[in-house]
Amino acid sequence: MTLAEATAVHMTTPHRYAGTVPPGWDIAGATNGGYLLTTVARAVLADTGRPDPIAVSAHYLVAAGPGPVTVDVQPLDDRRRRATASASMRRDDGTLLLAALATVGEHGAPGTAEVLVEDGSPPLLPPPKECVRVPPTETFPPPFMGRVGVLLHPDDTSFMHGRPSGRAVMRGWFELLDDEPITTLALLLAADAFPPAVFNTTLPIAWTPTVELTVQVRGRPAPGPVACVFRSRFVTGGYLEADGEIWDADGDLVALSRQLALVPRAS
Amino acid sequence: MTLAEATAVHMTTPHRYAGTVPPGWDIAGATNGGYLLTTVARAVLADTGRPDPIAVSAHYLVAAGPGPVTVDVQPLDDRRRRATASASMRRDDGTLLLAALATVGEHGAPGTAEVLVEDGSPPLLPPPKECVRVPPTETFPPPFMGRVGVLLHPDDTSFMHGRPSGRAVMRGWFELLDDEPITTLALLLAADAFPPAVFNTTLPIAWTPTVELTVQVRGRPAPGPVACVFRSRFVTGGYLEADGEIWDADGDLVALSRQLALVPRAS
Repeated sequence: MTLAEATAVHMTTPHRYAGTVPPGWDIAGATNGGYLLTTVARAVLADTGRPDPIAVSAHYLVAAGPGPVTVDVQPLDDRRRRATASASMRRDDGTLLLAALATVGEHGAPGTAEVLVEDGSPPLLPPPKECVRVPPTETFPPPFMGRVGVLLHPDDTSFMHGRPSGRAVMRGWFELLDDEPITTLALLLAADAFPPAVFNTTLPIAWTPTVELTVQVRGRPAPGPVACVFRSRFVTGGYLEADGEIWDADGDLVALSRQLALVPRAS
Repeated sequence: MTLAEATAVHMTTPHRYAGTVPPGWDIAGATNGGYLLTTVARAVLADTGRPDPIAVSAHYLVAAGPGPVTVDVQPLDDRRRRATASASMRRDDGTLLLAALATVGEHGAPGTAEVLVEDGSPPLLPPPKECVRVPPTETFPPPFMGRVGVLLHPDDTSFMHGRPSGRAVMRGWFELLDDEPITTLALLLAADAFPPAVFNTTLPIAWTPTVELTVQVRGRPAPGPVACVFRSRFVTGGYLEADGEIWDADGDLVALSRQLALVPRAS
């Protein structure tokens, strides 16, 4: 099942879209937040007739597993370069899973965005075949890892063997299965697909619930995997941020992400 | 007029709040986005009965000047530690100015947040009296600078004399006038109060419209001004991000912010 199939939605009545969360996209039973954001944004793109997300913000309310969902889109503004809508996703029993705001528009072809300031560069990663594919398990790594290709920088994988690196950094390649191309929508998934960077600190390896996630999409990615780096600098008062950069295979920045998450708790 | 007065709202019907944007809070005629976010969040706090913002995201639709506004709050979730609501602000003619999502709760007293990871420190700033107060003018600096106290690091002020530093960084103290205490709500204003960091590059000194702004509040600030640093690393495809850190006078991180803005255009 491709990402496009897994996040498919169809309009049932004006501004209302139906979809189904398939099994296997979860972390400890909670569907991945990036998957949910991708599905919600797909409904917004369908509703607004725009091809690309520009900024999408979601606040996550209730964690849930697979099953039918409904996305309601409320158009807020529609202008030449951008449209904005709010959207909410509910389970069939009416439970509100998340609420989002999305500003959408149209990006140019890969590599065409004018770069005026670039204070940064793609993470230095070994080629994908020298990186470490995170394998799905029933717990951690979660089943979700079987739905996407996350190939970690070897230096950031020691947490998988009980020896965190001590730096809250997680770098690696992200790809879709079966060579499915990475669209701007798929960047929303990439932004929440990696093991939390804090797994490389002394924090517990456990579900790290997202409170809020915003992704800025800066351009369409060139063909190939995207190079990602996620960092958490401040874990305070029970909260942490995770900042992501996503670069395409040609070395162009295609997305920035930031989430607020709860500190993982040992079970 | 204090910030509390300038952003006051009162309930008119359940979940609907009325306020007034006073004159002088604008940049080139467009009311400051941080001011609007503070007003909207104040309505959400009133509606949910919670004292502190935790994560507030807004997408900005239409720029407007002073006048009466209405904030409609829709409660989405209400649990022990956090509540979430959506909120929208309209002008009296019905024009939607912005839409927001806010997760709110309660922070402890200043300095009580448990710090598990802290990879960063407050910006090194001279004492406030050795910093440069940005004076309001009719254009740039904007009238808004007369409503708040922004005291820039001298090294970051050369853009005011036509010689940008070359680094997209803006550091300084933020305070309210007449010693009004800085609440967690006021941190939302601080997050959008500084001259854009890109003014220290070769980009034009002009209105830099905010598309989306999210502020994470990590704790209540200790008494005194807050130390702020804003950076823009990527100006690509007509967009830029501005990332902020806000630290209280005791050296505790109290907020992180990120906005997506349009590249300023020479008029």
